[in-house]
Amino acid sequence: MTTHAISSLVNHQIRLASRPVGLPTDANWEHTQQGVEEPSEGGVLLKTLALSLDPAMRGWMNEGKSYIPPVAIGEVMRAGGVGTVIASKHPGYAVGDMVSAGFGVQEYLSVGAQDIRRSGLAKIDLSVGSLTQWLNVLGMPGMTGYFGLMDVGQPQAGETVVVSGAAGAVGQTVGQLAKIKGCRVVGIAGGAAKCDWVVKELGFDACIDYKAGPTAVRDGLKAHCAQGVDVYFDNVGGEILDHVLARINRKARIIICGAISQYNSTTAVQGPKNYLSLLVNRARMEGIVVFDYADRYHVAISEMANYLQDGRMKSKEDVVVGLDQFPNALLKLFSGENFGKLVLQVAN
Amino acid sequence: MTTHAISSLVNHQIRLASRPVGLPTDANWEHTQQGVEEPSEGGVLLKTLALSLDPAMRGWMNEGKSYIPPVAIGEVMRAGGVGTVIASKHPGYAVGDMVSAGFGVQEYLSVGAQDIRRSGLAKIDLSVGSLTQWLNVLGMPGMTGYFGLMDVGQPQAGETVVVSGAAGAVGQTVGQLAKIKGCRVVGIAGGAAKCDWVVKELGFDACIDYKAGPTAVRDGLKAHCAQGVDVYFDNVGGEILDHVLARINRKARIIICGAISQYNSTTAVQGPKNYLSLLVNRARMEGIVVFDYADRYHVAISEMANYLQDGRMKSKEDVVVGLDQFPNALLKLFSGENFGKLVLQVAN
Repeated sequence: MTTHAISSLVNHQIRLASRPVGLPTDANWEHTQQGVEEPSEGGVLLKTLALSLDPAMRGWMNEGKSYIPPVAIGEVMRAGGVGTVIASKHPGYAVGDMVSAGFGVQEYLSVGAQDIRRSGLAKIDLSVGSLTQWLNVLGMPGMTGYFGLMDVGQPQAGETVVVSGAAGAVGQTVGQLAKIKGCRVVGIAGGAAKCDWVVKELGFDACIDYKAGPTAVRDGLKAHCAQGVDVYFDNVGGEILDHVLARINRKARIIICGAISQYNSTTAVQGPKNYLSLLVNRARMEGIVVFDYADRYHVAISEMANYLQDGRMKSKEDVVVGLDQFPNALLKLFSGENFGKLVLQVAN
Repeated sequence: MTTHAISSLVNHQIRLASRPVGLPTDANWEHTQQGVEEPSEGGVLLKTLALSLDPAMRGWMNEGKSYIPPVAIGEVMRAGGVGTVIASKHPGYAVGDMVSAGFGVQEYLSVGAQDIRRSGLAKIDLSVGSLTQWLNVLGMPGMTGYFGLMDVGQPQAGETVVVSGAAGAVGQTVGQLAKIKGCRVVGIAGGAAKCDWVVKELGFDACIDYKAGPTAVRDGLKAHCAQGVDVYFDNVGGEILDHVLARINRKARIIICGAISQYNSTTAVQGPKNYLSLLVNRARMEGIVVFDYADRYHVAISEMANYLQDGRMKSKEDVVVGLDQFPNALLKLFSGENFGKLVLQVAN
C-alpha cells in the first residue's frame, strides 16, 4: 500500500470507557477513530479481518490483579484476531501475509519493531484451517482446550469426561479431542439445538441441556455418567460445578478453565459447596491459563490441523459482522445466545 | 490371662445411638457393657490403653457415602487406638505386645483370625516413640501430615508453607516436617498460647491467631507471607481457606485434608468463594485420604521416628482420662479447646 493510500485510512476503535458492574452496557464503551500511519522500520501494519470474542474479556474489564493486567480505562479493548499485512518494513512479513495477533477491537494495528513478540504476531496457514477456525480450534480456545484437557486433565481411554459450555469454542474442542482419545464424553450446554448438534455432529456420547429444568443437570449426570466422572472440564462454575463434584470418581481431575456463570455477578462468587468431594475422592481441581503453553502451541496446532483435515474434528463459528456490533455481540456470550465460537467479522 | 480371669472382665463401650444434627450431644451416645471372651483360634484379645480422637470422627457419624462407610446406629463408635495383647491364639502376637489397631471406643477388642488385616493390627515399638506419640506423629495424624505434605504438597526448599490447625495433631507434624524440608512455615491456630508454642517450641517462622480479630488472618497472611503462599495444608476450610486462596502463588498446591469449621454446620458447607484464584494462579487443590498410603506407612514412620530421636520433631498430646469422658472430650476438637493431639486415655 502506498504512503498516500495508508494516510487516507481511518481506524475505527472501541475503547473501554468505564468498568462495568454486572453485564457490560453501552456506557462502558467509547467509539473512537484515528488516522493510520506507515509502519516504522522493522514494523508492520495490519488490517483486522476477524476478532475472537471470549468470556475471558469480561475479566479483563475488571480492575485488579489477574493473570494479565486489566484493560486500562481509555485503552482499545483487548482482543485476539486474525488479519492481513497491508504494509511491512519487517523482513519476515510481506504484504498479503495472513496473521494472528493481539489486534484489539479496531480496524488496523500498527506493530512497531520492538512490539512484534509482545503482539503475539504469527503467520497462519489458511490451507490447514479457515480464518475463523484460526480463532477457534487452531486459536486460543483450541489451545486452551487442548492443554487443559491433555496436560491437566490427563484423560485415559475409557474414562468419562464431562465438559460444560460444550457447544462453545473451548467445549467443542475438548469434547471432540476426548472422543479421539477414546473417552466417553458428556457435554453440558444450553438448549436442545446445541445439545443435538454436540451429539449428532460432534459425536459426543450425550449432552445435558441445563436449561431443561431445575433437576436437568443432576438427573442428566446420573443417567449419562453411570460410572462416575473422571475428568470435568469446567467453563461455567456455579451450580453445575457442584453437581459434577457430587459425581466424581476417585482421583478425578477437574480443570478450572472459567466460570462464565459468575463473571457478571454483582455479589460474591459462588464457591463450590461440594468441594469436600475432592477430599473424599482424593481428587484435584486445577486452574489453567493457556499462555503458559505458548512454546507448545505449534505441537497442538499441528495435531488439531490433522484432525480437521481427516474430518475427526469439526468446528462451528457464530459470526457477527461489523466492528460496531462488538458491544452487543459480546453480550451473546453471557446469555448463551451464541452457537459455536463467537467471532466478530471486521472486514472481508 | 487365664480363661477365668478373662471371663470376669467387663467391656465398657460407647455406641452411636443416633446421628447428630450439628454438634454431637449426649443423646447421640449409648453407654453399654459386654462380657469378654477368649480369642478364637488365630485371633487376639486386646486391651485398650489410649484412643485417638480426631475431627474425622464427626464425618463418620453422618449417614451417606464417604471415603469409608458411616458408623452404623448401635455400633461401637469407630476409633483408632493403642493397647496391649492380653490373650493370643495368633503365632505373631504374644501377651504383652504393644499394638495399634482400630479399637473402637471400648475397653477391649477381640480380633478374630479373619479380621486381623481389617483391624489394622500392627505392633508398635515404644523405644522410638511414646504410647501417645504412636497416636500422633507416628500414627494416623502423622501419616496424614506426612503424605499430604510430601506427596500432594511437594514442598520445595525456600517455599512458603501455611498450615491451619497448626497446634493440632496433623498441623504440628506438617509444620515441623516442612521446616525440616527447608521451607518457610506459617501456622494458623486459635489463641496466643497455641501460637506461642508453635513458634517457640516447634520452630515455625510465624503463627497467626485466627481468634485475634476479624482481620487477623488476612493481615497475618499479608505480614508473614510476603512472598505469597506456595503450599497450603488445610484442616479447617471456611473463611480461612478463602483468605489463603487470595494469597497463593503461581502453581500453588492446596492440600484438602479437612474442614473442621464446617463439620457441625447445619446449613450447606461454605464453598471457597475465591476458588477462581486456582485459575488465575494455575494452582491446584487436591484431597488426601491417608489410607491410600498404607503400604508406605513404614517409610514415613521410620523417617519421623528419626526426627523424634534427634529432637527435630516434637509432639504435644492433650490427654483426657476415662472412657466415659469420650463424648465431652470429642467436643473439645470443635471448640478448639484441645491443645495438641487429643487422646483419650482408657487404661494405664
